[in-house]
Formats: sequence, structure tokens, C-alpha cells
Amino acid sequence: VNILLHYIEKTFDVKSKILDFHHPHQLLEGLDGFNLQLSDHPESLEQLLVDCIDTLKYSVKTGHPRYFNQLSSGLDVIGLAGEWLTATANTNMFTYEIAPVFTVMETVLLKKMCEIIGWGETEADGIFSPGGSISNLYGILVARYKQYPEIKTKGMTALPNIVLFVSEHGHYSVKKAAAILGIGTDNVIEVKCDERGKMIPAELEKNILQAKKMGQTPFCVTATAGSTVFGAFDPLHNIADICETHKLWMHVDAAWGGGLLLSRDHSYKLSGIKRANSVTWNPHKLMGVPLQCSAILIREKGLLEACNQIGAGYLFQPDKLYNVDFDTGDKAIQCGRHADIFKLWLMWKAKGTYGFEAQINRYMELAKYFYKVLKKKDNFKLVFDAEPEFTNVCFWYFPPRLKHIPKGFERDQELQKIAPKIKAQMIEEGTAMISYQPCGDKVNFFRMVFSNPATRQKDVDYLIDEIQRLGKDL
Amino acid sequence: VNILLHYIEKTFDVKSKILDFHHPHQLLEGLDGFNLQLSDHPESLEQLLVDCIDTLKYSVKTGHPRYFNQLSSGLDVIGLAGEWLTATANTNMFTYEIAPVFTVMETVLLKKMCEIIGWGETEADGIFSPGGSISNLYGILVARYKQYPEIKTKGMTALPNIVLFVSEHGHYSVKKAAAILGIGTDNVIEVKCDERGKMIPAELEKNILQAKKMGQTPFCVTATAGSTVFGAFDPLHNIADICETHKLWMHVDAAWGGGLLLSRDHSYKLSGIKRANSVTWNPHKLMGVPLQCSAILIREKGLLEACNQIGAGYLFQPDKLYNVDFDTGDKAIQCGRHADIFKLWLMWKAKGTYGFEAQINRYMELAKYFYKVLKKKDNFKLVFDAEPEFTNVCFWYFPPRLKHIPKGFERDQELQKIAPKIKAQMIEEGTAMISYQPCGDKVNFFRMVFSNPATRQKDVDYLIDEIQRLGKDL
Ligand SMILES: Cc1ncc(COP(=O)(O)O)c(C=O)c1O
Ligand SMILES: Cc1ncc(COP(=O)(O)O)c(C=O)c1O
Repeated sequence: VNILLHYIEKTFDVKSKILDFHHPHQLLEGLDGFNLQLSDHPESLEQLLVDCIDTLKYSVKTGHPRYFNQLSSGLDVIGLAGEWLTATANTNMFTYEIAPVFTVMETVLLKKMCEIIGWGETEADGIFSPGGSISNLYGILVARYKQYPEIKTKGMTALPNIVLFVSEHGHYSVKKAAAILGIGTDNVIEVKCDERGKMIPAELEKNILQAKKMGQTPFCVTATAGSTVFGAFDPLHNIADICETHKLWMHVDAAWGGGLLLSRDHSYKLSGIKRANSVTWNPHKLMGVPLQCSAILIREKGLLEACNQIGAGYLFQPDKLYNVDFDTGDKAIQCGRHADIFKLWLMWKAKGTYGFEAQINRYMELAKYFYKVLKKKDNFKLVFDAEPEFTNVCFWYFPPRLKHIPKGFERDQELQKIAPKIKAQMIEEGTAMISYQPCGDKVNFFRMVFSNPATRQKDVDYLIDEIQRLGKDL
Repeated sequence: VNILLHYIEKTFDVKSKILDFHHPHQLLEGLDGFNLQLSDHPESLEQLLVDCIDTLKYSVKTGHPRYFNQLSSGLDVIGLAGEWLTATANTNMFTYEIAPVFTVMETVLLKKMCEIIGWGETEADGIFSPGGSISNLYGILVARYKQYPEIKTKGMTALPNIVLFVSEHGHYSVKKAAAILGIGTDNVIEVKCDERGKMIPAELEKNILQAKKMGQTPFCVTATAGSTVFGAFDPLHNIADICETHKLWMHVDAAWGGGLLLSRDHSYKLSGIKRANSVTWNPHKLMGVPLQCSAILIREKGLLEACNQIGAGYLFQPDKLYNVDFDTGDKAIQCGRHADIFKLWLMWKAKGTYGFEAQINRYMELAKYFYKVLKKKDNFKLVFDAEPEFTNVCFWYFPPRLKHIPKGFERDQELQKIAPKIKAQMIEEGTAMISYQPCGDKVNFFRMVFSNPATRQKDVDYLIDEIQRLGKDL
């Protein structure tokens, strides 16, 4: 425990390195007495402690104030305490019988989240899953079942050639889900976005009509509320209108953006979400809950269970002493299911809804600040030049050498190499971490993102200086 | 932390109650100051501590020596420490970049497990997933992809009517997987078992031929190595022969039984497993690793990635500074993935392979002891009267009143009610927990199972006495 507390202290210390980088083969071969190989015989307790220390030593401090690498970042100590308690209770969510408190907490949270979405009047339903990708899979699975209940027993061969729609900036888990579900990635139709990364409703409409003309059968649209790279919000009301007209299931992937619903200042960006049939919302991203914590919420109650129920006699006995409605296992695609609920519940108790709101508003302020600073610097260029709608800010850094090359293929070829080089250097020195990617015709650019409660304005300034320091001679 | 240590102490104390039972509506409405509802405002730190204490108070002590309710039970303190460290590191398995130690540990463990299965010579592959159900889904997903790679892009409509086979005692997650994958539960053909619960190879062969005659296309057989209720092992060599003849993928669901491979005395029960194409093995069951920890192992290297790869540019940049083979994210059906590996790794270091073996052998001894004691008691009847092959022992208790009713419908109707009544009483008193279920033509019987390191012989004696005490007047 002392080892862990020491690590937590280090994590929050800006002066400590984010990571002590080594290559995979170095770790695999063993570093300085840190040997990952397993043996037939036990190790001493002292050696185990050293192993623990080494494991932390070579890990990445995802709670460090200058860790901006992923949408999930930061280390909330209350959430952490919640996870420790969960681990100690070490139980399984499939029945009320063995997880009485946690299953009821899950009901409370699902209801709360559905209310926040705006489904207050109707009885909504849902479940916590091991991540947003699985939650998206649930959404599409239930969408398919709703329109074709025979799928469950007869399989896809009983169905027409069904297709679904997602924006070109939608998360790749939608395609993964289509591959898994037997729909096929070719049957995921990518809808064009505007320059800001939002799905264009007219394009969606056009794609739907086209698909129908080609004999395909549209069944679902996945809108994105907070896209991974640009942080864009699809226009949900327009999409809902189109879904109504064509009688399509509307799934909203708010894995990243869902948390914004807790901010009275910013929730309007998800306006229309209450018209969705299902929503993915990951507390483990914007809300800072430790990984894993993701919810799939379904507006029509009972559908989830109807879709997934197999009714294993050995778990879901009808002749129990309590109300078996709380045995949630048959709603899940899993059997054993980790309790991801307690840490979220405890954090909510600790912060209150307003506490989450304050935290999220602060991220939005930081994003605005970051945008304003970059805008003024002529060796940085914003990918999209307008005040950020969310906490993502995408940008290029131009070393002096490149500033004078005119726009075009040649410059892009050079620019493509800049971000990876700067990032590699950052990692080797362990000073900061930020992600980059190419996207469409745009060569490698950085994506800054705020979801780390430890980050302060001075860390933002530091990052900008650091990029310049590492990049100026490239 | 003190709260947690106190709970752990209580857990191991046989004299403490396993649970303090309340009904769902009681918890939902709030008990004695324990209010599950969430508010806009934060709670005080003192209240949070009380909440934590209450959460544990109303939870089920799954590590209690008399907790026999599930295949996953027990509380391993090293595993727990591993989980605490994992929570503190709070990272994500999708890239080496942010989980350098954990991704390399995963490689080490996957290799080790593949070697134990007997795939040492070839390069095997796999991934840790959120549970055995998802691992089984992976197995069937990869099986389908291997035979029909076009499934990924074109979906099931491009395929013939494919069917798979599993024994009638196979786990229900196989059917769930078929429903999810778009294969359909009707296309899961259940193969008859012998009286011990093992798949009958001649029946499998018959079913395959029948399916072909009906125009269906067999593609996969799922054998079970350690069935959920009876603990039966399907005859893997015979099944492998049949799979070879008919060119079918052989998946072995060793979620429960996999751990037995670590026992030199008992591993022969899984003989033939090395001929499988894929294997599910849950360290979170027999090996006592805290939930969740499950592996899917695939014999042919590269298939898993080929099947699941979508190649998201924002995560899996090719231009990184390290060997990106260690970025495992594109093998997974998930995006974010919890680190389930460290606790297993740490436990393996702490026990050595021999430590796991000793523990598992002890469970087998306890099962044998339990069987022998029951056999001598004339108010108990074993569902299958032979020395247990695994740690499952299934039995009925006959209250004196029922002993004189002759076998038949009338007696069965009464017997059906006995186990639920005894269990309900046990739960209300919090003295022990054991599962029961009906199965086929067998009315409700108890399933005893050993996977809890805290259990001693005297706890077994206690359970027998307790069942008699609670049941004798029913
Ligand atoms: C034989 C078998 N396979 C698969 C599973 C599913 O494992 P999990 O609960 O981890 O999803 C179980 C669970 O009891 C099982 O007994
Ligand atoms: C928009 C969006 N949806 C879904 C996901 C997947 O969430 P998870 O990583 O929890 O699977 C992500 C992850 O970044 C995301 O950004």
C-alpha cells in the first residue's frame, strides 16, 4: 500500500517523469533484475515487492498533469478508492444474490443517466459493459433485434441485406461491431462530414435513399456526440428527423461526449439526444472514472433482455427468495461481469452532479485558453480555426524550416514526419504525452484533449514550449 | 484502507456471516442511513466512509470459507494487491505506448499458457478478454473468419447456412455468441451427452452428417473441458479426430477446467487439448485470480488480428518509435481494454506453477472427501455416483418425509422445492452459500464446487450438517 501511495504522489508531481521509456524487447529480456518470465517455484515476498515497484517504475503515469495522450486520463483518488473496494469485494454482477449492493447501484445509476438524457418520462433500460466499443456493439445488436427479432434464432440468413450509417469521423468500433455481428464492414456506410467533422444531414438522407435504391435495407444510424479526434457533435435533431422518416433506429455514440450533459452551459451541444433509441456513454472518459466504466442505455425497456436472454438454469433460477428482476445477467452478452459501478457511484456521491459539472467546465475553459494561445502563434496552425466546441483541439506545429515551403505535397511530406518525431522525443525524455494522427487528406497533426483533472494552465503553456523546443530544429 | 483490511479479516473468519440479506426494494429505498440515491451536491468525507462501510456490510463475502456459490470464489490477497496496483496505474491495454509493462506481461502469459496447452512448437496467439463468454465469442468469431474471410466485409449474407456443435451441457455463452454473431441459436446444434455429462462422439458424428444432409454447413465444434454444472470433460481426442475428418474448427471451452492443466496428477483429463484450434481459459475461476481474467488462445498466429483489425489511425500509428507488434489493440473486439494481466502475473510469481498445482490438488482432495461422506449418508443422493473427475459434486438432499415416497413424478414435485427452500434459509441466516439448479429431467439439485482456497474439511462437514439442519423438517 505504501508503494502505491508513493506512486500516486509521484503521479501528481509535475516534476517527475511521465515514463521511463524502454523498448518492448528490453522489457521482455529483463531489465536490471526486473524479470517478467514465470517459473515453477514461488518468489520471496521481498522480490514480489520489488516486482511491484519495478512494474510501476516502467509504467506510464496516466494521471500526470502533462499526460494528454488519451481521452481517458487522470487519476481520481475517490474513484481509485472505489476500485480498491470493488476489488476487495471481488464479486460478479450476474445476480442480485451475490452482488446485492452493486446490482441495485447499477439500477440507480442507469436511471439517473437515462433521466439526464431526457428519458425521464419513459422507463429506460441499460447495462454497464467493458467499454464503449462493446456498448456500441450492444446498441447495434439491439437495433437489429428490434427490427428483426428472428435474427436471434435464425441468424442473418433470414434477413435482407441490412446496412447502417455512421459519419466518416465515427469511432472505428462501429465497423468492428458490424464485422462481429455478421453484418460486414461493407454494410457500414460512411456519411460525409462538414469541415468541422459533423455529419451532414443531407448526405445522410442521400445515402439512405441510395442504399434503398440499390436494394439494401437501412436499419440504423449511429450518430457521434463528441468524435474521437475532432470532438465534433453530429446534429442530433436533424438525424432524429431522418431516422423517424425512414423508421431507423437511432444510436448515439456519446462515449466521449456524454459527460458534457452534466454541464448546464454545454449540454445544448447534445440537444436531441433524448430522441435516440440507444446511447453509449463512458464515465471512464470525460467524467474521469477509472477504466473500465461504460454504459449502454436503451430507451425501450425489456428489449435488451429479450435480445440477449438465453436463460441459464444454473444462474437464473425463478424460485429464488427475492425479486429476480434484479438478476441482470440475462441482459448481458457476458456471463461473469466485473462490478464497474461502485467507483462511479462513489465519485458521484463525493462530487455531486455539480462537482462533475465544475470539472468539465474547467476542461472547456482550458481548451478555449489553449486555442487562443495557439491562434496567436505563427508556428502553430489549427486544423479547424474556430473556438472549440469540446475539449479536443487539433493542430500542426511548423518548424521554422517548413514555414517557408509553400503549401502542397512537398511540404505535407515533411510535415507528416514532424509530429511523430516530436512525440518520440517527448516519450524518450518523459516530459509530456500527446497523441497525433493523420486524417483524410490531413497529414499527421496533434490532438490535444482535456480530461485530466490534474492539468493546470501552466501545463498547457509547458506543452506548447516543449513542442517548440523539440521541434524547432526538425 | 483500514476499512478494507478489516473486511478482509472478516471475510476469512468462518464465524462471521457470509451476508446480511435484504431485499432489493429495501436497498433501493435506503437502509439505516445507507442511501443509494445520488444528488447534485457533494457528500462529506465522513459520509463517504460510512457509505463504503455500508456497501461492504450488505455485500456478499465471496472469499468466505463457506461460500461455494460460484465457480469463481475466494479472495487471494496477492491477486488483490495486484488489482490495487492495476487500479492505481489506471491504464489501457490497447497500445504498448501507454501500457508498456502490462502489454509485455500479457505476451509472456499468453506464451506460457499456450505452452502449457502443448502448443510449444508453434507460435500461438491470443488475448485477454473481459470473461469466458467473450472468449468463447472470440473463438467462434475466429473460426468463422478462418473458413470465410469474406465475412468481415460482406457479412453473413455471403455465407452458406453455417452451423456449430456443442454438447447439451456446454455453457450458454456459446448460444449467446451465436445470437450475437448473426449465426442464430437454431444453428447451434446440441450434442447428446453420456450420463456423466460428456459429449458422445458418435452422436457428434451423427449430428454432423445429419446437418450436412439437410444442407447446412458445419464449421466449428465447441468442446467443453470442465462443464459448468457437472464438471464433465468432453473426450477431446475423439472430438479432434472428428473435426479433422470433417475439417471443422475445434474450440475448447476450458473456462472452468483450464486450470487443471497445472496439475500433473489431473491434467490428463484434458488430454487432446493441444489439438484444438482455440481455447478459452479463465484464470478467474479455478486459479482463483480476482474477476475479471480470461484468456482466449488461438493456435494459428496472426488470425486474431486479421479477423479484428480495423486499423484506427488515431491509435495505431505505424510511425512510432518502438516495435508496434506490441500494440495489441487491433486484435481485440474492444478499444479501451482493462489491464487484467498484472494480478495473474503477480500471483504466478508468488505461487509458482507448483503453488497453483498444490492448491488445485487440494480442491480435488476436498471434492473426493465430500463425495465419500455424502455416499455414506442415506439422506443424500449423488446425481452421478462415481468419484468426481473435477471439483463439482452434484447431489440431492432428501428430508425424512420424502424418503418414503417412491421415485416418480409426485416425489420429484416435492424434491424440486427442497433445494430452493434450504438455500433461501441459508441466505437469510448467512451461514453458507451453495448453488442449485434443475437439469434436463433432474429436478433441483445442489452443485457443490471447490475453488475457494479458504475452504477446509471442517467447512465441508459444516455444510452437510447445515443442509440437514435446515432441511430435515421440510
Ligand atoms: C464452462 C464455462 N464456460 C464459460 C463460462 C463463462 O465465463 P465468464 O463467466 O467468465 O463469462 C463459464 C462460467 O461459468 C463456464 O462455466
Ligand atoms: C467516440 C468514441 N466511441 C467509442 C469509443 C470506444 O470506447 P472504449 O475505448 O471504452 O471501447 C471511443 C474511444 O475512444 C470513442 O472516442
